[in-house]
Amino acid sequence: MNELPTLFAFSDRARALHAELARFIAEQVVPAEAEYDAHIAQPGQRWTIPPIMETLKAAARQRGLWNLFLPDPRFGAGFCNLDYAPLAELMGHCWLAPEACNCNAPDTGNMEVLVHYGNAEQQQRWLLPLLRGEIRSAFAMTEPAVASSDATNIQTRIERVGDRFRITGRKWWITGATDPRCAFFLVMGVSEPDADRHHRQSLVLVPSDTVGVKVLRPLQLFGFDDAPQGHAEVQFEQATVPVENLIYRAGSGFEVAQGRLGPGRIHHCMRLIGMAERALAAMCQRARTRIAFGRPLAEQGMVREAIARSRVEIDQARLLTLSAAQAIDAAGAKGAKDLIGMIKIVAPSMAQRVVDRAIQIHGALGVSEDSFLTRAYAGARALRLADGPDEVHLNALAKAELGRQPK
Amino acid sequence: MNELPTLFAFSDRARALHAELARFIAEQVVPAEAEYDAHIAQPGQRWTIPPIMETLKAAARQRGLWNLFLPDPRFGAGFCNLDYAPLAELMGHCWLAPEACNCNAPDTGNMEVLVHYGNAEQQQRWLLPLLRGEIRSAFAMTEPAVASSDATNIQTRIERVGDRFRITGRKWWITGATDPRCAFFLVMGVSEPDADRHHRQSLVLVPSDTVGVKVLRPLQLFGFDDAPQGHAEVQFEQATVPVENLIYRAGSGFEVAQGRLGPGRIHHCMRLIGMAERALAAMCQRARTRIAFGRPLAEQGMVREAIARSRVEIDQARLLTLSAAQAIDAAGAKGAKDLIGMIKIVAPSMAQRVVDRAIQIHGALGVSEDSFLTRAYAGARALRLADGPDEVHLNALAKAELGRQPK
Amino acid sequence: MNELPTLFAFSDRARALHAELARFIAEQVVPAEAEYDAHIAQPGQRWTIPPIMETLKAAARQRGLWNLFLPDPRFGAGFCNLDYAPLAELMGHCWLAPEACNCNAPDTGNMEVLVHYGNAEQQQRWLLPLLRGEIRSAFAMTEPAVASSDATNIQTRIERVGDRFRITGRKWWITGATDPRCAFFLVMGVSEPDADRHHRQSLVLVPSDTVGVKVLRPLQLFGFDDAPQGHAEVQFEQATVPVENLIYRAGSGFEVAQGRLGPGRIHHCMRLIGMAERALAAMCQRARTRIAFGRPLAEQGMVREAIARSRVEIDQARLLTLSAAQAIDAAGAKGAKDLIGMIKIVAPSMAQRVVDRAIQIHGALGVSEDSFLTRAYAGARALRLADGPDEVHLNALAKAELGRQPK
Amino acid sequence: MNELPTLFAFSDRARALHAELARFIAEQVVPAEAEYDAHIAQPGQRWTIPPIMETLKAAARQRGLWNLFLPDPRFGAGFCNLDYAPLAELMGHCWLAPEACNCNAPDTGNMEVLVHYGNAEQQQRWLLPLLRGEIRSAFAMTEPAVASSDATNIQTRIERVGDRFRITGRKWWITGATDPRCAFFLVMGVSEPDADRHHRQSLVLVPSDTVGVKVLRPLQLFGFDDAPQGHAEVQFEQATVPVENLIYRAGSGFEVAQGRLGPGRIHHCMRLIGMAERALAAMCQRARTRIAFGRPLAEQGMVREAIARSRVEIDQARLLTLSAAQAIDAAGAKGAKDLIGMIKIVAPSMAQRVVDRAIQIHGALGVSEDSFLTRAYAGARALRLADGPDEVHLNALAKAELGRQPK
Repeated sequence: MNELPTLFAFSDRARALHAELARFIAEQVVPAEAEYDAHIAQPGQRWTIPPIMETLKAAARQRGLWNLFLPDPRFGAGFCNLDYAPLAELMGHCWLAPEACNCNAPDTGNMEVLVHYGNAEQQQRWLLPLLRGEIRSAFAMTEPAVASSDATNIQTRIERVGDRFRITGRKWWITGATDPRCAFFLVMGVSEPDADRHHRQSLVLVPSDTVGVKVLRPLQLFGFDDAPQGHAEVQFEQATVPVENLIYRAGSGFEVAQGRLGPGRIHHCMRLIGMAERALAAMCQRARTRIAFGRPLAEQGMVREAIARSRVEIDQARLLTLSAAQAIDAAGAKGAKDLIGMIKIVAPSMAQRVVDRAIQIHGALGVSEDSFLTRAYAGARALRLADGPDEVHLNALAKAELGRQPK
Repeated sequence: MNELPTLFAFSDRARALHAELARFIAEQVVPAEAEYDAHIAQPGQRWTIPPIMETLKAAARQRGLWNLFLPDPRFGAGFCNLDYAPLAELMGHCWLAPEACNCNAPDTGNMEVLVHYGNAEQQQRWLLPLLRGEIRSAFAMTEPAVASSDATNIQTRIERVGDRFRITGRKWWITGATDPRCAFFLVMGVSEPDADRHHRQSLVLVPSDTVGVKVLRPLQLFGFDDAPQGHAEVQFEQATVPVENLIYRAGSGFEVAQGRLGPGRIHHCMRLIGMAERALAAMCQRARTRIAFGRPLAEQGMVREAIARSRVEIDQARLLTLSAAQAIDAAGAKGAKDLIGMIKIVAPSMAQRVVDRAIQIHGALGVSEDSFLTRAYAGARALRLADGPDEVHLNALAKAELGRQPK
Repeated sequence: MNELPTLFAFSDRARALHAELARFIAEQVVPAEAEYDAHIAQPGQRWTIPPIMETLKAAARQRGLWNLFLPDPRFGAGFCNLDYAPLAELMGHCWLAPEACNCNAPDTGNMEVLVHYGNAEQQQRWLLPLLRGEIRSAFAMTEPAVASSDATNIQTRIERVGDRFRITGRKWWITGATDPRCAFFLVMGVSEPDADRHHRQSLVLVPSDTVGVKVLRPLQLFGFDDAPQGHAEVQFEQATVPVENLIYRAGSGFEVAQGRLGPGRIHHCMRLIGMAERALAAMCQRARTRIAFGRPLAEQGMVREAIARSRVEIDQARLLTLSAAQAIDAAGAKGAKDLIGMIKIVAPSMAQRVVDRAIQIHGALGVSEDSFLTRAYAGARALRLADGPDEVHLNALAKAELGRQPK
Repeated sequence: MNELPTLFAFSDRARALHAELARFIAEQVVPAEAEYDAHIAQPGQRWTIPPIMETLKAAARQRGLWNLFLPDPRFGAGFCNLDYAPLAELMGHCWLAPEACNCNAPDTGNMEVLVHYGNAEQQQRWLLPLLRGEIRSAFAMTEPAVASSDATNIQTRIERVGDRFRITGRKWWITGATDPRCAFFLVMGVSEPDADRHHRQSLVLVPSDTVGVKVLRPLQLFGFDDAPQGHAEVQFEQATVPVENLIYRAGSGFEVAQGRLGPGRIHHCMRLIGMAERALAAMCQRARTRIAFGRPLAEQGMVREAIARSRVEIDQARLLTLSAAQAIDAAGAKGAKDLIGMIKIVAPSMAQRVVDRAIQIHGALGVSEDSFLTRAYAGARALRLADGPDEVHLNALAKAELGRQPK
């Protein structure tokens, strides 16, 4: 795996954990991939959790590699965004690593929400088990009927009836909803229809076993169901919860969701960079060993260009993402919003290109399930849409640039 | 300086059938997609043929839309490549259409091989049932262990033992091998190890029920198994067939396979163009109706650029492919090899780009199984590898260009 | 679904003249380049016409290669757009060829305007000398102060004062205005300020020696002044001409200018294709002979890719442009407007890319005046702006596509 | 102008000088452009130095902005590469700034050579006047007849005859040779024809007034002669110099030239970044104020995408170049060679794209001499060739990547 970049002022503790995490992933997590996949490939076991995952989690805790993402030292590792970013990159090398270290989305964002905005009871009941890795959770925002890139379009209704909220609406691409351990949803919906458009939404915690919560089907991303975590279409049909389940305050849904996005985008982008590094390593490995027309692919000019451009693009994406992480640390998610928009434009499409080149060099193997590449591709492609499509970020970035005074 | 371009003209019969086929697809085939998919989605029915397919096939025969691809009028419609090309494009709009019209790969190529190179007995026993759509077939060339883009790498052995051939080797991405109706394989293997590298291979017809033929597993293309036709990994383990099952003559495998490729590439590219047209239509439909940030997507500049560029690229790919079809008609696959290489470079990556743009405009729907786009994407992507990766064609084309005399 | 493409056929006469023109260019025009350039490189001769040009013109007339662009057989060769297109491509190989054959812009467009819209007296006085190649002319539309891509922005005023028009305004990029033979300008200006925005402009013929016409300076395109024809900034300062100099009728300026654009864009695009062919030939020639790191460039993969992609892009641009030419012949410039927009999007940027690759392969020679490549580059680049920037055409094309009914 | 990036550990002195340099450029250098250009536009003054330049140089010295590039504190500012890089970026905003601060190529590289490899006498006679800005110099490596990207191809001969060297060969693109103040050339040639290929060349200092040194002509880069500095073709025809003029030792030419390249590439890339910033600012300024089709360009989606992508690409290129600067400081040019290759691949083509977009948004103005854009474009384009074409760097980078052990 790649070394820690020497440019930035990482803390000594982050450097030490980076080395430990690299060892853990290489020695335990990557070797566990086959057993994990074999478990869910068994008939009837697709939506169950392979026992190896608990082994990995225990090992991670023991090695001190647990809740690394959480900046609040009362609850987690207490790293700033810059320190955590290279750890997230390492976890991007292997799809089991984030969960093994209790650092996988959307639980990470949900834990952050509960740390920042949850009251003591909510933290006791839902945050602590999440932090221990005992339960999983989901974040229910995107809806099939409206362009959710514009969050003010959301149509799910949250109505107060006595001392309860009644929730009605259709959500989809709810990651983790099909996980058997999923204990609750954070549901975004309109509770204050008469407020201005950024203060209509609230966020309500809905336990999975609430009557009226129906997980309709697992969705497939490019043919992958991503079991056992999965992404689901979910109907909330007059599901009711006590008013105590409101997160923060009424009308704050948009604000809370936005705050969740800044660090989350750093995590996503760094994991994509890790994934792209693995794709590039696979590309080189293949190029060195595969012979066509009498020469290894590695000696062919177009293959070399693919490799060189991938290295350039990965390194540029990393520098940009690290500088966004540092900017959040220095100026908050709002102050860093241009840089956060930039990494969302850059990292997913970089990963898409690098993986596409790796596929090309792998030939028929590259489009098959014997390689991690197609699944990696699907993940990168989805992230050009999730958390705002490229076009939205390009538009916002241009507006910011145009708003600057001439110099 | 370049010569005056030669130009095209379609026959009246092709124009008439084009209109009829367009009606058939719009009225019967597209509407059958849902029923077809529902059938194979039922437990236990994934690898069975939906009855609606037989209904469509009967309708196609009745409408005179049968075996349109086959240029030999004794066996098929008798169209030249230019006349057939726009029909292939229409079939690309809907993945059921090629089979409904008995024009689907790899059966089309296999029928062409048997027409050109099969002896009377082989034609009687295998070609006629294929032409009637009663059986299906497979073409077994690609191997997992070697770069099959260089066909001379192939390792499967075909050994003569008395009056039988004994075949040993591993093949994969054998389209149709998992189809329950698949009756035989055309297997490419080395029979003359001491001949020069383009005369070592032979093609042998191996019935599916031969002892030693093992369909190991269906392969997944970007997570799609493409059931019920499928793509399989197949082991030939000392499978033996009578020497009468040799196609043409010993050592002619490379030559026969090459002849199969020219028209096959026209078909693939035209179908991709039809698929891209469907993606563009879907993109426009979505853009007209989806509202984000207060305006339909259709009014946003980046969306408009995506639409305009897609129209330009589709139309350019079509003109190039039609001119390749005309060149084959005029000069044979060998004489048209540059143009055939060019369409292989152009059409799959055009389709990949157009579908990718359509996905982007569809948002979360675009990466889900509720849209045809991801499956279309996987198909386009695979065709940048199948029948030779882009790099091989780019290299050959450059060599041809460099070989021309300065003008 | 898309309709069956309509296809093309060249006349026998066009084929014969194509061969003759190719010979003329190879035998006489290309060999004259050095003498032509040497003439204008002499001190004091930059804005004079090299005598060799008259020799070439005489030769072209004798060979029947004169006024080939003009579809009206009373005045010119009488070719349709399709027949003329490959002749324009040939002329694109060499910057002297269009003038040698009396087929160079903007005289071609001006001649077409006078044929269609000029009255008998205007034709007698201005068209016939142009057709004989005795005078040159200019077309004055673009203005420095407004976005002329939107022609309704034009600010030059044409005021009637008694029986004369008084013209006031600043124009630039007026090609040919610095040519010593330039006898008149067709000037676009606002004459009916109260009409709707497409009927405000008129076109008036202004002789070059009119008082108040000031050629302020030759402009440089990427450092090239394109002498002796040149592109000038011109001030019309209360220049007055008799009302008889109105072209067609008052308020028809937009309509007349639009009609001029369709065929003109075909000519431009075909010449760019010819120029790109020359660049590709130069690229191959260089690649075959230049040695770096022990091998000819022609054996290096990235160079090969550059060559192959150039061939693909040139051939695709040609097919598209020919089909646009045919569409104008069949349906008029209005009926063919989508295709005309498409070629304007495709051909200049194709030429820009191909020439850029050729520059790269030529190394330091490629950016110097010893090669035609930088000047070719500047020409291609300018045509991504002239006659409407890419963005305007992309937008219009998307609108047309979105306006189509779903099929 | 852009602020100093906050990421890197710049010294306080560098930060202070950055602010001072930004003021100097904004207050004095940019305002001097018009006067400078007007001077050389006068007849007979093209190859003379505008007096305003001496004014600027005096002002720069007074402000402490002199010889900033030189890391050796005995002779220059004593900055490391990281500290100097943002200063070089600032100078890239304005083509007069590097010379005004005595930081312009090729003098910078020549001064570094003389500092490192010059003996005391050479330093006294040639380095000190250069450091004072009294003379200028040239570096003569590239030859027209061979691919100079592979420096071992160089054919100029340096023969020892008694106690003198006799130099014979043709060089071109010798920047500064046409500057009237150019006092000497560092000439690279073959002195040890029998040594291995990296030890054949020597570097010899040849005074400009040596008999046999013939400046044949100024060369034009895309039509620009870049007067009064210029780029020349130069013939060395049995020019002889004393053997004391050898730089370092015989056979060390390749080594000395390589050492010169690392920091030089940082300078080039940072200046390109500054230039791209100026182009982006111009793009925004134009987009805010230019109206087309009823809206400012700034509100049009494709224009916004151009702006946003330019910002992303500039910032990524800066981060990469700064990290290369830091790597040279930490590990030397050899240790940083991958990063140096990466910035050479990235920065010039980034600048080419950004400037091309700016041209597009400026319309006809953008391709004229009234804008700095075409000249900026030519400079960026040339740097995809100078100091090694992209392909050479891509190839070397791929080789390094392939050589890494799998992780």
